[in-house]
Amino acid sequence: MSAPLAEFELIRRYFSFASASADVCLGVGDDAALLRPPPGELLVACCDTLVAGRHFPINTAAFDIAWKALAVNLSDLAAMAAQARWFLLALTLPAAEDAWLRDFASGLRALADLHAVQLVGGDTTRGPLSITITALGSVPVGQALCRSAARVGDDIYVSGYPGEATLALADVLAGGDGGALRSCLDRPQPRLQLGLALRGRAHAAIDISDGLAQDLGHLLSASGVGASVDIDALPWRQSGQRDLAAILQGGDDYELCFTWPPDQPLPATDVALQRIGRIEARAGLRFWQGGCEVDLPQTGYQHF
Amino acid sequence: MSAPLAEFELIRRYFSFASASADVCLGVGDDAALLRPPPGELLVACCDTLVAGRHFPINTAAFDIAWKALAVNLSDLAAMAAQARWFLLALTLPAAEDAWLRDFASGLRALADLHAVQLVGGDTTRGPLSITITALGSVPVGQALCRSAARVGDDIYVSGYPGEATLALADVLAGGDGGALRSCLDRPQPRLQLGLALRGRAHAAIDISDGLAQDLGHLLSASGVGASVDIDALPWRQSGQRDLAAILQGGDDYELCFTWPPDQPLPATDVALQRIGRIEARAGLRFWQGGCEVDLPQTGYQHF
Repeated sequence: MSAPLAEFELIRRYFSFASASADVCLGVGDDAALLRPPPGELLVACCDTLVAGRHFPINTAAFDIAWKALAVNLSDLAAMAAQARWFLLALTLPAAEDAWLRDFASGLRALADLHAVQLVGGDTTRGPLSITITALGSVPVGQALCRSAARVGDDIYVSGYPGEATLALADVLAGGDGGALRSCLDRPQPRLQLGLALRGRAHAAIDISDGLAQDLGHLLSASGVGASVDIDALPWRQSGQRDLAAILQGGDDYELCFTWPPDQPLPATDVALQRIGRIEARAGLRFWQGGCEVDLPQTGYQHF
Repeated sequence: MSAPLAEFELIRRYFSFASASADVCLGVGDDAALLRPPPGELLVACCDTLVAGRHFPINTAAFDIAWKALAVNLSDLAAMAAQARWFLLALTLPAAEDAWLRDFASGLRALADLHAVQLVGGDTTRGPLSITITALGSVPVGQALCRSAARVGDDIYVSGYPGEATLALADVLAGGDGGALRSCLDRPQPRLQLGLALRGRAHAAIDISDGLAQDLGHLLSASGVGASVDIDALPWRQSGQRDLAAILQGGDDYELCFTWPPDQPLPATDVALQRIGRIEARAGLRFWQGGCEVDLPQTGYQHF
């Protein structure tokens, strides 16, 4: 065991990533960071907290905890079609253990480097393990994707394979290791490139962190519209029948759900995109299978 | 007891402050906020976490917890000479209790309104009580106050009466109610107006959240200089002799310590300002009393 680290040494050792970016005038180490927003663009800001045992299994590796804490925030920026730029880390942990911090910092840096986002500030405190990240990005005026702009007649698309994080979690909770799907749970891939490709072309978007049905429901309410979703069109690549509860109610997927004008070609992207339904004037979310409307729950992850 | 609140209802009821500000294009309620930074200014960003029982006594009123969580962040913006603009709230709490949330939201709003800062986003999660706020502001290019810009010959000033939060905490920990000083502990006043008055005129500044001696030490190290401090000049308005440990090592004061060119008049301000020493070329922090150097500890609040 190494000696406990003072906060300032901890920050210096693990969280002072070299920052040679022209948009960071002053990074970690002063009372606040000084950042240069791109002229003519809006600032995009969000924050999300992960609590140990609630948002990730207690036995999750430090690398993956950090990855996920950053990924869920970058996913929110992606859903706004933002260019991700900077983030702040508020890390609360029971003890400053050298090996854990080294792995945590590696995970954070791996995802940050992948998307060229800069750690510019934060706070470390002692307490029950919890991570809050604030992500900051930018988007040209008029090109952000809000959840309130869906139009009647839009096609509804979803990226990736919602439900796989839930399948992995169920396996972990049953004592397994999550198998090949564990990375869906531990290392979600924020869809930043997809968000940029949708800029100014999609009508509305949301990230489905709390479950496809619930988050699509938020988009519909915000837009004052309804939708029909085709159960047989929901993406699924596992063996056996579709697990509709996992696909529709499972959370933690961090895929994008967006609405798209039906006469426009889709953007080129390396993420699987699946048309799952259509926006309609009548309020509410309806599910169809083989020409019949089916009754399915529309709830998702509940924070309280 | 009222029924538990769903997250979305909780946010709608307590944290959807009306926001008619021209610099908020989209506030609480989407994946992220859309904000309009002032043209030609730098963005100033910081975040701080308060953990129950560590950063405030367990019996602290919800109103005061919220006030303090926002105040400590605005204090960091003040130390950079930033105009405070927006904040995000990450609130982790064991249960969604209506009365507690109402009081918490009132405290948050009271301080936010006082400084015209807007709540633009955040996250609510269930877990041990902890609050992380990210504060965002702006400052014209070249006018931010960093801790690294102190110059030899500068006078060193401190605002207010450092040590009073520590005196209040000592009383609370001994079973008292903190008396007249309790508000120093529970409702610190971020020195935003002072920070603006120092813009482009002071050389260096820091907020003394971790104790005057330790934080001044950070400023000296960052600037590559040293200082002499006059013990008899340290501000004190209590009866009896100065409590040097409270003044120099006590944390939680959220006053500003800044260095100022000796031949310049001080700005007009309604906060008490006291000259306590001078910046010198020789590294290290030295204390003097009656013409003699005295040996005093230079440590402060330790986070780990």
